[in-house]
Amino acid sequence: MLYNKYMKRILITIQYDGTNYSGWQKQKNEKTIQGEIENAIFLATGKNIEIFGSGRTDAGVHALHQTAHFDLDIPIPIEKLPQIINNRLPKDISILSAQEVDASFHARFDIKQKQYLYKIYQTKEKQPFIANYFAFVKEKIDIDKMRDCASLLIGEHSFKGFCSADTSATNFVRTIFDIDIQNVSENEIHIVVSGSGFLYNMVRILVGTMIDYSQDKLELNDVQQALTNGDREKAGQTMPPNGLYLYNTIY
Amino acid sequence: MLYNKYMKRILITIQYDGTNYSGWQKQKNEKTIQGEIENAIFLATGKNIEIFGSGRTDAGVHALHQTAHFDLDIPIPIEKLPQIINNRLPKDISILSAQEVDASFHARFDIKQKQYLYKIYQTKEKQPFIANYFAFVKEKIDIDKMRDCASLLIGEHSFKGFCSADTSATNFVRTIFDIDIQNVSENEIHIVVSGSGFLYNMVRILVGTMIDYSQDKLELNDVQQALTNGDREKAGQTMPPNGLYLYNTIY
Repeated sequence: MLYNKYMKRILITIQYDGTNYSGWQKQKNEKTIQGEIENAIFLATGKNIEIFGSGRTDAGVHALHQTAHFDLDIPIPIEKLPQIINNRLPKDISILSAQEVDASFHARFDIKQKQYLYKIYQTKEKQPFIANYFAFVKEKIDIDKMRDCASLLIGEHSFKGFCSADTSATNFVRTIFDIDIQNVSENEIHIVVSGSGFLYNMVRILVGTMIDYSQDKLELNDVQQALTNGDREKAGQTMPPNGLYLYNTIY
Repeated sequence: MLYNKYMKRILITIQYDGTNYSGWQKQKNEKTIQGEIENAIFLATGKNIEIFGSGRTDAGVHALHQTAHFDLDIPIPIEKLPQIINNRLPKDISILSAQEVDASFHARFDIKQKQYLYKIYQTKEKQPFIANYFAFVKEKIDIDKMRDCASLLIGEHSFKGFCSADTSATNFVRTIFDIDIQNVSENEIHIVVSGSGFLYNMVRILVGTMIDYSQDKLELNDVQQALTNGDREKAGQTMPPNGLYLYNTIY
């Protein structure tokens, strides 16, 4: 890219309801978060710009603080960027902030920690107004047992047994720093998983494993074997995407 | 219809998130609430049955307690009906209850009172996760002024000035029993309008009128003229559909 005195690398934070999108990553003929943001930047600036996200989110997965970077070479005050992009974005995607970062910064490669929130609603009844924002579990969940299972998962492990077969990863070692499980109301359980990085479907399988163990559908020995042998069959179910929120990215 | 000892008239109450539907009323090639429920009844019973709603809701309008009746001639215990229909319905529509009613009962013609809830969120920021469930108002709303305007609207009036030109109505007289306006949280205002019946877009225009008056965009004299002369130009804006909830139908 040619030197341009206006060229700046910009980091944006983004919040979105993923319900009506085919995930983060741009795809032909699909409505995606990346595609909508790039289109809004084009409408706002006249520039065709590629944005680089901290990572992909799947169809139906939400984000409270997704991050992405891009290079922009027009003299717009950075503090005005969120609003001019937001005005051209659908109402279920919002740019929360924009800041200038070093020209070598990368939204994906510079991540130190990522946090995901998983929201569970315990009920036997249908919930039309929150159907897209929680995973619904009918059978009783034992939070103490979930926490016991979490202690086994925290730490540096190969998580080959906790990712989808669709992954293109070759190195399965990741570190989970913390798994925080809270009963935030009578029906709601929130699980925050913090880690160095996550494999494909890993958070959804970790949560499914803790739930299955808490409901006596798995034993701790199965979970241990999934960790030791990378055996996907020994880990728990893959929870649905709509309970999952990209919560934070820490650089 | 031939006499059948199993024939029963059934009244159901229904809750739905109207976001992804083209309203209540069945239409060719459109996803509608009525269409989805009739399809679920067909899947559950093998019967092609027409259901009669308490009234239509527009695209994007929600319902907490919509009602509808239909005739069913198969020996299914009524208490099991909600679940067998729910199992065949999308997750954003739920049958809350079913009861047998008199063969002469009609879900629309027997209504004594209808209540609508309108939800307003005061903010200048985008709200991706509640975008479909509120009307968003940036400028300050004065609740006391809204209540002053409401006192003028309560009672029996011709509401010709408060309905969409698309209406097929010829009699515009309706009675508004009550308009209750509450600040339920720092940002949220809930308005419950109770009446004998409502014209097309009437609740959305009533709410728009109260908001416009509270923001000094209208005078009480304009509102009075809209009531007296049926002049739509003198009433306020039509609020968006997504803040509107059919709240209750009383027989």
